[in-house]
Amino acid sequence: MEEQNKIFLNAGELLARIRARKPLVHHLTNWVTIYDCANIVKVIGASPVMAHAPEEAADMSSLASSLVLNIGTLDANFIESMKLAAASANKKKIPVILDVCGAGATNFRTSKCGELLRQVKIDVIKGNASEVAAVAGEDVFTKGVDSTEIPHDPVAVSRDMSRKHKCTVVITGEKDVVSDAGKTYIISNGHPMMSRIVGTGCMATSCIGAFIAVESDFAYAASSALVCFEIAAESAAKSAGGPASFKVQLFDCLYGLDNKHIRELQKVACV
Amino acid sequence: MEEQNKIFLNAGELLARIRARKPLVHHLTNWVTIYDCANIVKVIGASPVMAHAPEEAADMSSLASSLVLNIGTLDANFIESMKLAAASANKKKIPVILDVCGAGATNFRTSKCGELLRQVKIDVIKGNASEVAAVAGEDVFTKGVDSTEIPHDPVAVSRDMSRKHKCTVVITGEKDVVSDAGKTYIISNGHPMMSRIVGTGCMATSCIGAFIAVESDFAYAASSALVCFEIAAESAAKSAGGPASFKVQLFDCLYGLDNKHIRELQKVACV
Amino acid sequence: MEEQNKIFLNAGELLARIRARKPLVHHLTNWVTIYDCANIVKVIGASPVMAHAPEEAADMSSLASSLVLNIGTLDANFIESMKLAAASANKKKIPVILDVCGAGATNFRTSKCGELLRQVKIDVIKGNASEVAAVAGEDVFTKGVDSTEIPHDPVAVSRDMSRKHKCTVVITGEKDVVSDAGKTYIISNGHPMMSRIVGTGCMATSCIGAFIAVESDFAYAASSALVCFEIAAESAAKSAGGPASFKVQLFDCLYGLDNKHIRELQKVACV
Repeated sequence: MEEQNKIFLNAGELLARIRARKPLVHHLTNWVTIYDCANIVKVIGASPVMAHAPEEAADMSSLASSLVLNIGTLDANFIESMKLAAASANKKKIPVILDVCGAGATNFRTSKCGELLRQVKIDVIKGNASEVAAVAGEDVFTKGVDSTEIPHDPVAVSRDMSRKHKCTVVITGEKDVVSDAGKTYIISNGHPMMSRIVGTGCMATSCIGAFIAVESDFAYAASSALVCFEIAAESAAKSAGGPASFKVQLFDCLYGLDNKHIRELQKVACV
Repeated sequence: MEEQNKIFLNAGELLARIRARKPLVHHLTNWVTIYDCANIVKVIGASPVMAHAPEEAADMSSLASSLVLNIGTLDANFIESMKLAAASANKKKIPVILDVCGAGATNFRTSKCGELLRQVKIDVIKGNASEVAAVAGEDVFTKGVDSTEIPHDPVAVSRDMSRKHKCTVVITGEKDVVSDAGKTYIISNGHPMMSRIVGTGCMATSCIGAFIAVESDFAYAASSALVCFEIAAESAAKSAGGPASFKVQLFDCLYGLDNKHIRELQKVACV
Repeated sequence: MEEQNKIFLNAGELLARIRARKPLVHHLTNWVTIYDCANIVKVIGASPVMAHAPEEAADMSSLASSLVLNIGTLDANFIESMKLAAASANKKKIPVILDVCGAGATNFRTSKCGELLRQVKIDVIKGNASEVAAVAGEDVFTKGVDSTEIPHDPVAVSRDMSRKHKCTVVITGEKDVVSDAGKTYIISNGHPMMSRIVGTGCMATSCIGAFIAVESDFAYAASSALVCFEIAAESAAKSAGGPASFKVQLFDCLYGLDNKHIRELQKVACV
């Protein structure tokens, strides 16, 4: 099915827009991968900023071209700052992506995701299959932040979730699934080495943050971001001697990524 | 003395267990090296998670196979979350390691370590000689988090401390000392380059966290962790052009570490 | 003008002092680049420590040889800890550097910088042109933390600011400007790759923190720090394949930096 549904994403054109416009991507993200989130946005060509104080989170969002929320190391006050930042972004129609990192592992995480989804408008929800299923209310078990189990069909979960929350849903895994009301993209790029280091999921979210800053078709933008990030990962894996040199190469390859490689190496289907 | 007390640790077998079981290692650690703590656990083959909110710290600990506490950038609330996490781990007999990072530098650090040791069960205490001596109540001076002075004989300090707190005590230094009630291991692996970068002490603690997740003889597990980590450091130093390329190599070498090297290169005595 | 005002800084002698004395450099810095701040201080040869709890920030400062404040991810409590740390440093005449990271982007940042400048003695103020202009009360717009616009003549801004606050002022950019009451240094070292990664500004501040720990002529020390850091960046760029390998090389090159290169490659004028 996927082969016959193969499509071409002009991800290179979006990447060129980012490099030309250098959009400001505001983050309220986790403390583990915060540097990598900032740096991946930087090497793509955008400009990251991180500001979580309740006194300035809304102001900083209003200056930005997109807002990235990531609950990886949430606490109650941090979620309140996220709400202030997102409400400010909503008001100015600045797109918001939420990484539901670790949802399902504890009730606290799952319920805080629910709170965010009810109280502010989230444009893109992103997680792995068990995290997204947990937020969707499915009875799943997430083991820490590292689950690779797929408790439900990700295409079905992402479509349902997308309709329910009127947003784009991204489920990452061996194959990534991106759904909005009208269509579902399946991206088959990537490399197993991505799961050997901490932070590729967070970095993918931040990349999507940069792409939705320059393109209002969020499913298209998110899919393009994943294509670019994962093609860079494929190149990086070729010359890597292990996970840390892979990570160095990942940044270098994304920085140097050109349109020719994006065109030739992408593996995208639309179902 | 040490040469004649040379022993063999089957550290490779423990490493294989970690790679097979992928235990969840929950951290409440410092904000400086948090990424490296997570990533070293990941490249070893385990699964790191960091959750410090008081609303979920206990829940996350109860899902984990070990708990790593590191006071490097402590504050009062963070210590309270550590207590919740450790109490939850204690209840389910999940092992807990405490890195007394910087103890002795300020009264606050030293007294908070004392509080933790009194209020929860710590299975492994880990620090450098002056940090552990400070926690043991010795009158020492720790200069920041970087002290290499050895104010007291580490074997004596670790044994006393081990008896007093009914736990395993790890004192790192040029030679590492690991004591429990019955025995003391001395590990002579490692490389001076380890002290040229920030975070090797914290990473060593997290490695031990992964090893105690799969082996209930904690002194044996901790010594095995140090053997693996430090043999990787020796390999890394060979091809490093400086401290940052050393660090990249350290992760790569630990990821690729095989049983043959662990067997041949280990330098362990039991006294 | 600059060519005829060319001068020689014995930055290598200051670097040798750092390597010999290993001064403790206390940081209250941002959570994005905190590891890099610590590690750059370490590879220079000094000893970093990060302690932000109000219960110990003052004690740790009193043990240190310099204090680095960086508001990159400030919140209200963190600023209060900065005040405690700085007041303690002031009392013992330990030099304090403030990186006004992101000032001008939000009122909160700009006003908190003003508060710090009024309530404690800052010895070195450091930022890019728009950040420093914002703190100086100029009507500027800082886009996130990444601005490269130069709204005003940096030499004039740094001199005015220096007189007003009786301190040394460092404005980084393609050319760096360092002013105190009597003189202004202009440093033309560096490489465009420095602006392709996150954290070079913060690392430069931490380097200056290490240099003012061993030299009481702060303008001389700050200029020497920038010379060393930026010559290392020039060397790093030669063998880098992209921004992440550049960063690895930057640490390695700074670690291995020798007096011969510092002498031959420096580009400094005094106006």
